[in-house]
Amino acid sequence: MGNASSGLQLRSLIKKSGELEISLISVPTLEPQADEVVVRVEATPINPSDLGLLTGAADMSTAKTSGTRELPVVTAKVPEAGMKAMAGRLDESMPVGNEGAGVVVKTGSSDAAKALLGRTVAMIGGAMYAQYRTLRLNECLPLPPGTTAAEGASCFVNPLTALGMTETMRREGHKALVHTAAASNLGQMLNRICIKDGIALVNIVRSKEQADILKKIGAKHIVDSTAPSFMDDLTGALVGTGATIAFDAIGGGRLAGQILTCMEAAINKTAKAYSRYGSSVHKQVYIYGGLDLRPTELNRSFGMAWGIGGWLLFPFLMKVGPETGQKLRQRVVDELKTTFASHYTRVVSLQEALDPVNMSVYAKRSTGEKFLINPNKGG
Amino acid sequence: MGNASSGLQLRSLIKKSGELEISLISVPTLEPQADEVVVRVEATPINPSDLGLLTGAADMSTAKTSGTRELPVVTAKVPEAGMKAMAGRLDESMPVGNEGAGVVVKTGSSDAAKALLGRTVAMIGGAMYAQYRTLRLNECLPLPPGTTAAEGASCFVNPLTALGMTETMRREGHKALVHTAAASNLGQMLNRICIKDGIALVNIVRSKEQADILKKIGAKHIVDSTAPSFMDDLTGALVGTGATIAFDAIGGGRLAGQILTCMEAAINKTAKAYSRYGSSVHKQVYIYGGLDLRPTELNRSFGMAWGIGGWLLFPFLMKVGPETGQKLRQRVVDELKTTFASHYTRVVSLQEALDPVNMSVYAKRSTGEKFLINPNKGG
Repeated sequence: MGNASSGLQLRSLIKKSGELEISLISVPTLEPQADEVVVRVEATPINPSDLGLLTGAADMSTAKTSGTRELPVVTAKVPEAGMKAMAGRLDESMPVGNEGAGVVVKTGSSDAAKALLGRTVAMIGGAMYAQYRTLRLNECLPLPPGTTAAEGASCFVNPLTALGMTETMRREGHKALVHTAAASNLGQMLNRICIKDGIALVNIVRSKEQADILKKIGAKHIVDSTAPSFMDDLTGALVGTGATIAFDAIGGGRLAGQILTCMEAAINKTAKAYSRYGSSVHKQVYIYGGLDLRPTELNRSFGMAWGIGGWLLFPFLMKVGPETGQKLRQRVVDELKTTFASHYTRVVSLQEALDPVNMSVYAKRSTGEKFLINPNKGG
Repeated sequence: MGNASSGLQLRSLIKKSGELEISLISVPTLEPQADEVVVRVEATPINPSDLGLLTGAADMSTAKTSGTRELPVVTAKVPEAGMKAMAGRLDESMPVGNEGAGVVVKTGSSDAAKALLGRTVAMIGGAMYAQYRTLRLNECLPLPPGTTAAEGASCFVNPLTALGMTETMRREGHKALVHTAAASNLGQMLNRICIKDGIALVNIVRSKEQADILKKIGAKHIVDSTAPSFMDDLTGALVGTGATIAFDAIGGGRLAGQILTCMEAAINKTAKAYSRYGSSVHKQVYIYGGLDLRPTELNRSFGMAWGIGGWLLFPFLMKVGPETGQKLRQRVVDELKTTFASHYTRVVSLQEALDPVNMSVYAKRSTGEKFLINPNKGG
C-alpha cells in the first residue's frame, strides 16, 4: 500500500517559448474534508478527450525524452500555428486524466465518506493520472462488489457519451441515428446500447477491418466511407432507418456535409412536391471529436432545414439535469460488465505512459488501440 | 382596368435536357371562392429568394431570347453539376414571385371578401409574377389608405425576415446580433429595427461603399470583411456588443467560421480559466442565403459550444405560431413607410423582367440593385 501522504502526478505544461513538457512530479496528497475521500488510483484510461490536454497542439514527432527512469520528462515542439489555441494555458502546469477508478484508502469525517473505506470506486473530475486523488463523494461512484478498478475505470466518459447520444436523439425528435468512426470503443458501446434498446444505428467506418469488428458484435447497418459507392450506400441505409441525426467524431473534411446530403436525398425519395428550399425535415450533425483536424467543408446541397454544432458530454449533462444524469449513471453501473465493458490493449505505469514508443501509438487515436494507466503499477 | 378574366403569368421551366426556359403565358383567372379575392398585381419585387426558383441553377451568361416582344422567351443552359439539385422540378412549368401588392378587382361571396373590393392589399403565397392573382383572405394584408402598391409590395419577406432575426435572437437567449451582406435592403431594414429597439447590431460589409450606406442611416458597428484588420475589427465589435448570434446571407467560404472564431476570441478576452474545449458560451450562425455558392469552410477554432444551421422565414413563422406572426405583421403595417420602407432602383413590366440586360443586373444580387415588377405596366 505504501504511504498515501504523497504520490506522483502527471503534469502537462506548454511554455510561451512553444515547448510542450510532460513530466511526473511528487505532490502531497490533500487531506480529505468531511465529505471527501482519498483514492489510490489503479486504473485511468487515455481517452481521445484526454489527449487534447496531455499533448495539446504539440507535434509529437518532435518528442524527446530526458530525466530519469523514475521521473522521465518528455518535450516536444508546438508549431507556431497551434500556439494561438494554447493561449489560455501557457506556462501553467496542468494535471491530466478525466476519469479513473481505485480503492478508497482514507476518508473524511462524515458517515457517508467513512462508509467507502476500502471500497473500489469510479471517479470523474480530472487529475486522475496520479497515484492518489482526493475528491468529493459526488465525484465517486461506488462499484458493485466483484468489480475491479480496470473494469470501472471508464464508467463516465464513453458510457455517458454513448447514452447522451441516444438521449439527445430522443429529446430532439429523431428516431434513429448515425455514428462515425463507428468501430471505436465508444462506437461498439453505442451499438450494444442501440441493439438492446431497439434503436436503428447507421455505422460509418473507414475500412473493411472496422466493418468486420462491428459485424461481429451484431451491427446491422455498416457503410464504409472509403468505398466508391459510399454516398449510395449511406443514402440506402438512411432510407431504411429514417435517421436524421448524426454524431461525428471525425469533424474535418467533407463527411459531415455528406451525411446531411444523403439524409436530404433519403428524405426526398419519399417527397411529394418540389420545394426550392429542400425538405422541411430538420437534419442535424453533432461534431463531438476532431480525428480529422482539417476544416469542415459543407457544400450546402441539403436544403435549409439543417444544423451542425459541437456536442460535449458535460454541457449535455448540465442541460438534462441531475435526475436524468443519475438515471444514466445507474444504468452504466448496472450494465458495466456487458453493455459498457471497455477493452484495453495495454496497461502501463505512469512512467511507461511517457515512453515515446507508447506515446506514438496512443497519440494516433487509432481505432482498436486503447491504453489504461495504472499509476500504482510498479509505483 | 381591362378584362380580369385572364392575364399573363411568368413561368420557369427546367427541362430534363438541361435547359431553363422562362416565358410568359396567358392563364385564365381563377374564380374566387367565398373567402377569396382577385387582385390586379401592380407591384411585386424580385427578391434573392425568388431568384432560386426563377433561374434555378442555370448559367445566365448563356441566356438567349426568342419569342415576340409581347411574349418573350428566355432560355439558358443548366450546368451538369447543377442538375442534381433541380431533380424535383424537372419538366414542371412553375409560377414565380413570393409576394406583391395590388388592387382587389373581384371578390368571393363572403362579407369579409366583399369588404376588400377596390382596396390595395399586400399579398404572400407565390405566383405573383402575373397580372391577376386569386388568393385567400389570409394571404392578403389590407394596406392603410394612402399606401401605394409599390409601397406595400415588400411587406412580407424582408420585413418579417428582419423581425424574425431579432425575435430569434431574443428567444435563443442572445443580447446582440451580427449580420452579413449588411448593406442590403434587408440589412438596412434590420438596422432601422435595431436602432429603434435598442439592439446592438454588428454589420459586416464587403466594401467601403456599403459601409458608407450604413453609416448614413446611423449604423454604429460596421466592419469590412475585405480589410486586412477584419478579424481584429470584428472581435473588437463583438467585445463591445456581446453578440453571440449571427445571420449570414453569404453562406459560402470562410466567413461563417470567422464569425464564430471572433465570437470565441471576444468571449475569451474576459474568461477566467483555461478550458480545453473553449468557452461554454453557445455561439450560433444561421445561414439564410447563399450569395457565395462555394462550400462553407469551418476550421473549428472556436471551441465546442457552437452551432451553424439553415434559417428560413416560413419554418420560423410556423415555430412561433400565429399569434406572434400576427403581431409581427401588424408592426410591419404600422411602420411601412418608415422602418420597413423598401427602395427599388427600377420598375419593369413582365416583358422587361425577361430582358437579358435587366436579368444580368438583378441575377447578380448586388447590394443596391433592387427590381420591382409591375405586371400591369403597359399590359
